[in-house]
Amino acid sequence: MSTIGKVIKCKAAILWEPGAPLSIEEVEVAPPRAQEVRIKIVATGLCGTEMKMLKNLRIYPIILGHEGAGIVESVGEGVSSVKTGDKVITLFLPQCGECTSCLNPGGNVCIKFKESQSGLMSDGTTRFTCKGKSVYHLTNTSTFTEYTVTKEIAVAKIDAGAPLEKVCLISCGFSTGYGAAINTAQVTAGSTCAVFGLGGVGLSVIMGCKAAGAARIIAVDINKDKFEKAKQMGATGCISPEDFEKPIQEVLIEMTDAGADFSFEVIGNPETVVAALTSCHESHGVCVIVGWMTVGVQLNISGGLFFSGRSLKGTVFGGWKSRDHVPKLVSDYMAKKFNLDPLITHTLNFDKISEAVALMKTGKCIRCILMI
Amino acid sequence: MSTIGKVIKCKAAILWEPGAPLSIEEVEVAPPRAQEVRIKIVATGLCGTEMKMLKNLRIYPIILGHEGAGIVESVGEGVSSVKTGDKVITLFLPQCGECTSCLNPGGNVCIKFKESQSGLMSDGTTRFTCKGKSVYHLTNTSTFTEYTVTKEIAVAKIDAGAPLEKVCLISCGFSTGYGAAINTAQVTAGSTCAVFGLGGVGLSVIMGCKAAGAARIIAVDINKDKFEKAKQMGATGCISPEDFEKPIQEVLIEMTDAGADFSFEVIGNPETVVAALTSCHESHGVCVIVGWMTVGVQLNISGGLFFSGRSLKGTVFGGWKSRDHVPKLVSDYMAKKFNLDPLITHTLNFDKISEAVALMKTGKCIRCILMI
Repeated sequence: MSTIGKVIKCKAAILWEPGAPLSIEEVEVAPPRAQEVRIKIVATGLCGTEMKMLKNLRIYPIILGHEGAGIVESVGEGVSSVKTGDKVITLFLPQCGECTSCLNPGGNVCIKFKESQSGLMSDGTTRFTCKGKSVYHLTNTSTFTEYTVTKEIAVAKIDAGAPLEKVCLISCGFSTGYGAAINTAQVTAGSTCAVFGLGGVGLSVIMGCKAAGAARIIAVDINKDKFEKAKQMGATGCISPEDFEKPIQEVLIEMTDAGADFSFEVIGNPETVVAALTSCHESHGVCVIVGWMTVGVQLNISGGLFFSGRSLKGTVFGGWKSRDHVPKLVSDYMAKKFNLDPLITHTLNFDKISEAVALMKTGKCIRCILMI
Repeated sequence: MSTIGKVIKCKAAILWEPGAPLSIEEVEVAPPRAQEVRIKIVATGLCGTEMKMLKNLRIYPIILGHEGAGIVESVGEGVSSVKTGDKVITLFLPQCGECTSCLNPGGNVCIKFKESQSGLMSDGTTRFTCKGKSVYHLTNTSTFTEYTVTKEIAVAKIDAGAPLEKVCLISCGFSTGYGAAINTAQVTAGSTCAVFGLGGVGLSVIMGCKAAGAARIIAVDINKDKFEKAKQMGATGCISPEDFEKPIQEVLIEMTDAGADFSFEVIGNPETVVAALTSCHESHGVCVIVGWMTVGVQLNISGGLFFSGRSLKGTVFGGWKSRDHVPKLVSDYMAKKFNLDPLITHTLNFDKISEAVALMKTGKCIRCILMI
């Protein structure tokens, strides 16, 4: 029996308040309105950023999850780019195609991204209800649910043959890291790179540096258990700040003669940002902040670090324009231009979501995929 | 009678201690040693950075001045790129051609720059003596003197027909601003730019933005007397923060729809750096710090400003590799590709140096050229 046009009752993981466990409940998912799409989520990753969100959001209750892939269940009025049955990836960063960001070749942060941070759809309402209460959406996504509703501009149609339990990583983690190296830093062939933080995104940065032809990729983390995987992904050396008495930036400057050509902070810690910036070459070094810093975090940077030519760059979603590039990244994956398998260390069923959160927090899990 | 190989007695302006007036004294200038060049300075500009140096140096006594042009009097052993009689420009930023900066296409801060900040020549001595005391050099230059000695790697031979009283500005101020727009920011055709600070360097930034084809150039200064000249150089609009109740960054974001494509801080003030960074587009905006910040100044920047893709870049000497590019900039001036005349508001004889300093401090003088 078709669900089109009807409210769907299904399971979703609700975050009722800051720091609470994710609670699987029955929710009601309303049909998509104009320019909206309802998606049956098949697989979703748990991202490191999500772990920070568990305690640092301002809207509750909410359905988290932003690394999802699924199949279009139905579309609202005026939707033309996807149809029932299409395989899609959810895009926390939409692409409206019309704003000052979308029209500029240099950026990718569509102005509609900010609008969606309210947790509401464009008409100011939500499509989720649980126990009679409206439940907020997570910026254009909410994938910890059997069904979600999002905007057409936040959905990318992908290859019908794509394995959703793999390519869901293109929805955030992989693309964010890989693109930070390729698009934002524009890593050059033969260069030296330093990558701070070896979670799934950091490993994807390493993959991007390698794909761009970097000659040396130095991986930095205090958790040495991550070194083997980092080397497998392309790191040519791994160091822990805890193994040195001097600050890690001094170690890196010595190791690289005068500083890395490119450095990446993939943690979201203001002190590590300064270390990464200092580690890159004083004249031409480029430091990219990939890690998500919680709202209100201040960077305290000596003005002198910029005197001689360093650059500090922000990046979201690896600089990819989401709707344009996600389908291409999926095609590249299908063509074996990169391999997502090493990033996926665990796959669990949806009802094990609390176990997945615990795994992510140990640092032993790179990416845990939930099969919804 | 030739002075070659002999100590030259001549006039120089000495800074004996922080905040003291520049005192014209008789100094002894030793002959150039190996890889050094002795230059008869003909003209020198006074730069805004110099005004800060009057109070903020760590080595005394010293001969300031770093925007000079002159004629080679003699060369030391092993010097092959210039000879007696050549017209030259002094380069505070040298180009050794061999270090990790010189060999990288992306940077210009030669490693020998830092070495020269000791105020000593490579052998650890100075070539200046006054009243029996050694007098320090200012990083590879010291142009407030009839004769100076500098390294061969800090001298650029220029067109024999070049007017030294004009092209001395290519030694610092003009090149720093013009290059910040063209090389560091890489201003694009049709873009919108905001320039904070309308001294000689800020006006040169405007010239660079215009040359790069910017469609809008918004000049920002609290001194409205500077607006007429800014418009003459290419500004399409001028605003003073004192005319608005809201912060100037909010004004600029409104004026430009969503932020400037490129912003430039040409003051060296940490609060203005944050305003300039905030003023540029959150997704693709590039902010360049051109102003010199005194040692120890801290930038306190909200991490969120980088979240969505902004870049903050440092620049020295406009990103030009000094020995490669200065002769070309002089040729471009001779070919009338840009005009230095509007930047030169005053020309005085060397003995009026204190008057020149006073003029620079009023803000009514853009560049004062001293004829030595």
